[in-house]
Amino acid sequence: MPTIFPKIKKITVHSHAHSYPVYIGHKTVLENMSSVLKPLQLSTHFIVVTSSVISDLYWKKIKMCFPSSVNLERILISDREKDKNLNTVQKIIGNLLALKAHRKSCLVALGGGVIGDITGFVASIYMRGMDFITIPTTLLSQVDSAIGGKCGVNLKEGKNLIGSFYPPKAVFSDISFLKTLPQKHYRSGLAEVIKYALIDCPQLWQLLQKHPSEILKRDPTFLEKIIPLSVQTKKKFIEKDERDFSKRQILNFGHTLGHALEAHDKYRRLTHGEAIAQGMYYATQLSLQKNICRPEAAGQIQGLLKKYGFQKQALPKNISSYIARDKKGDHKNISWVLIEDIGRVQRRPIPLKAF
Amino acid sequence: MPTIFPKIKKITVHSHAHSYPVYIGHKTVLENMSSVLKPLQLSTHFIVVTSSVISDLYWKKIKMCFPSSVNLERILISDREKDKNLNTVQKIIGNLLALKAHRKSCLVALGGGVIGDITGFVASIYMRGMDFITIPTTLLSQVDSAIGGKCGVNLKEGKNLIGSFYPPKAVFSDISFLKTLPQKHYRSGLAEVIKYALIDCPQLWQLLQKHPSEILKRDPTFLEKIIPLSVQTKKKFIEKDERDFSKRQILNFGHTLGHALEAHDKYRRLTHGEAIAQGMYYATQLSLQKNICRPEAAGQIQGLLKKYGFQKQALPKNISSYIARDKKGDHKNISWVLIEDIGRVQRRPIPLKAF
Repeated sequence: MPTIFPKIKKITVHSHAHSYPVYIGHKTVLENMSSVLKPLQLSTHFIVVTSSVISDLYWKKIKMCFPSSVNLERILISDREKDKNLNTVQKIIGNLLALKAHRKSCLVALGGGVIGDITGFVASIYMRGMDFITIPTTLLSQVDSAIGGKCGVNLKEGKNLIGSFYPPKAVFSDISFLKTLPQKHYRSGLAEVIKYALIDCPQLWQLLQKHPSEILKRDPTFLEKIIPLSVQTKKKFIEKDERDFSKRQILNFGHTLGHALEAHDKYRRLTHGEAIAQGMYYATQLSLQKNICRPEAAGQIQGLLKKYGFQKQALPKNISSYIARDKKGDHKNISWVLIEDIGRVQRRPIPLKAF
Repeated sequence: MPTIFPKIKKITVHSHAHSYPVYIGHKTVLENMSSVLKPLQLSTHFIVVTSSVISDLYWKKIKMCFPSSVNLERILISDREKDKNLNTVQKIIGNLLALKAHRKSCLVALGGGVIGDITGFVASIYMRGMDFITIPTTLLSQVDSAIGGKCGVNLKEGKNLIGSFYPPKAVFSDISFLKTLPQKHYRSGLAEVIKYALIDCPQLWQLLQKHPSEILKRDPTFLEKIIPLSVQTKKKFIEKDERDFSKRQILNFGHTLGHALEAHDKYRRLTHGEAIAQGMYYATQLSLQKNICRPEAAGQIQGLLKKYGFQKQALPKNISSYIARDKKGDHKNISWVLIEDIGRVQRRPIPLKAF
């Protein structure tokens, strides 16, 4: 692929199940998808799961991206976090049965994180597992949720309480999708990019520091750099600990408080990125309190968050009861990721009663 | 284990996820479970999923089989095939949340196939996967469903349409459970034992031929032979093709028609074994028609089925529409397993329109 399609970056992610390619490029990924899909020989029956908004914008184009020989169908679902539940799973499965999808059919997640998480989960359980590929259309999904094989749905009791580790067969990340993304959602993805810079990527930190206006304006030249760097950083952690019992938890920097804020907000107003930006502010402050982090580094981190429009907010009073529900905890301690310096973090269990 | 507990057979099954031991013995498996569990270091929090019938019979005994140091809890569910559905999955998950089960808790399936299938499925999706062990209490589950990692639930559209390949961490098969099993269900398991003999185990065939009265009377001496031989035969096929795309389908001998009969019967009167016994009659007849099988061998097979109380029945008139729904088919052909001789079978796609 690199020799034939020089303008596409290909990153291979290794998982317990199989290795899969992540293709990243501006326009080039969609233009060449058909040629990439053919040798993968995934299926002759593809079923795209997407939202009506994405479908209205891109369905005509997407149809052209698949080999003309395949049978291509479409299932429309809601892409709201509140609909990422078992009802939607059952709806998709009902549609799959009606479309006579079998174990050798292939699902396609076309959309952001909600679409990807739910489609991957359906792929993992329909007839005990079928293949799926993802075409992430948001920055957040391109740099985070489409990579690493985590999929699942929410229960009324909490987020992602049901799910699997079920990696896709390929990820097609085309930067051109990002031009139709509302700025609020684009910035949500940027918060995860900032997180990668902070936990382990000095190169990304430099780019974010030096080019905020280009990056905030979605300049493709910079997106072609920051997306692969983000994916590379995530890859590093998930390949060491796919099932998220140790190293992978580093990726949770900003997420302990972030998840609690999202739950407190009932997933209504705050985007995921806004929540984890607050989480990063708080984790930095906690690192200062614990004498782990130098005040200069903390200042720089807070400066970068501000540069990308994330202002520090006061915490809701009852937030500690939401922190207590963290899946990574063990009912006594909460596993926090604290920052030592830019590009260097550590995991630390902190007693729940400390909050 | 074999040196310390000479009266327990241990068979190790290799799967994509991990290898797991299957312990088989008469009384000895339960008596020694605690000593076996300790070095496995699975969890300090075990949650047993079982039915009220099994619980009434065995809960006191089971409690003694776990190390006294662990936190042991219990969830009661229905063990009827019609309740092997997403509602029961949600009920178990609600209970797990109430019991504060986390990713490092361990589920225990205590019961027959329904309990095992649904518990394994919940283990595969709760917080993206937790460990589970099984204590199969029926002959059918000891020789078949507890081995091989297939788990799942039914939809109104069909059986096992949702599920995973998710192997247990260990299987504890104690023959003493079988003494309280209704004869109808015991014979259901025997049909699968007969299947193993027919597809690949001459030693099992000899035992079944020579000792029908001892085996029908559940003589532990013979059960201690036929259960391990059955597990060994299943192991051979699933290790070659865990995901059931080729070799494993040999295990489907008798099941193409068997599943259709169960669906036609709406899973009410026929046991699984009764259905596949009819399936074996029919597959043998089909093998004769296709000139694959010698009439002498066909006669011997039919003779053995009769010996174990399975009488040939007339097929329902509309059975072909149920055969057409077979998950192993591809909408044009149905994949049948035909028999060449005792201990030798072959897979053969036969056009759907032939029925």
